[in-house]
Amino acid sequence: VNSNGEFYATTKLPFVMGTTGGDREKLLVDVNIAKSYAVIAPNMGKQIVAMQAALEDLATKYPSAFEGYALDVIESHQKTKADTSGTAKAVIDSLKVLSANEKFVADDDVVKLRTDEESSLFGVPVSAMNGHAWHTYTLTSPDESVVFKLEHNVNGRRVYAEGTADAAAFLAQRIEKDGDAQRFTQ
Amino acid sequence: VNSNGEFYATTKLPFVMGTTGGDREKLLVDVNIAKSYAVIAPNMGKQIVAMQAALEDLATKYPSAFEGYALDVIESHQKTKADTSGTAKAVIDSLKVLSANEKFVADDDVVKLRTDEESSLFGVPVSAMNGHAWHTYTLTSPDESVVFKLEHNVNGRRVYAEGTADAAAFLAQRIEKDGDAQRFTQ
Repeated sequence: VNSNGEFYATTKLPFVMGTTGGDREKLLVDVNIAKSYAVIAPNMGKQIVAMQAALEDLATKYPSAFEGYALDVIESHQKTKADTSGTAKAVIDSLKVLSANEKFVADDDVVKLRTDEESSLFGVPVSAMNGHAWHTYTLTSPDESVVFKLEHNVNGRRVYAEGTADAAAFLAQRIEKDGDAQRFTQ
Repeated sequence: VNSNGEFYATTKLPFVMGTTGGDREKLLVDVNIAKSYAVIAPNMGKQIVAMQAALEDLATKYPSAFEGYALDVIESHQKTKADTSGTAKAVIDSLKVLSANEKFVADDDVVKLRTDEESSLFGVPVSAMNGHAWHTYTLTSPDESVVFKLEHNVNGRRVYAEGTADAAAFLAQRIEKDGDAQRFTQ
């Protein structure tokens, strides 16, 4: 992630990057110093980025509003994805603030489905076994009388392609309009 | 709603009111003129109010981010509730902005479950048949590859009682602290 970012920055190549990996601070600094054009987003699905931003805002405005609520997270991805979903981790950061839950550890406590059998039982269609990102977050009140559930389920990769195309078009527009180079993050 | 509000305001009786009904503008004006103490919220479940606020913010910040997405809403309540859930209507207002959908009409297009059989199939436990509020909102991308789903399911009324008690305690605190009367809305 960072070596690519450095290369694009020093060569002033405008770029679109969707990642939760690498050293994000360094990535932003490199691009800022070079004053090159870039869209850097944690996820190229713009709807998913919007949802993440909304949860961050909610956690900032109403920390502990869901205090005492239990947090459960299940995610399913194609079996070639080894690590826990970065998007899930970002959402979980917000949900931990909302539920005043410091104990939840994404790498240990997220239920990760990585076999076709598990994913299929979770509802993923056969056609999406080799490329999908399904997430279910559940907050349950201490007496279990109240349940909030959020799901975002993506089959295939079209939504990321669309988001990337949108971001590239947006950059092209800005380059046309501005004299000065700028960096955009979501 | 409004005659109660007027009565509390003119007699300077501090009050907590959870409602989506009545003439809200008039309610606020009455309380403001009287400078009396009140908490007026669309729902006494504070978690639900927080969620509503987050969706409103999201719609304000990213209108049309979900453009083209289909909206589906199912809600189940005890069979004595005649009208469409006011909370659902408020959430739908935000989701319509997000999906740039002007055609969805809450009173016509929300699937309302009001029989024990339907509610039971939806997942409501038998013990909550006489008091529950279950809501599922689904946004589906045009090619159906992306689905966002939000559920908030309440059994019984304890969460509202807790929210009301919290609001009353909050008012009592403010009355103790302030010389001047104030009004609080969520």
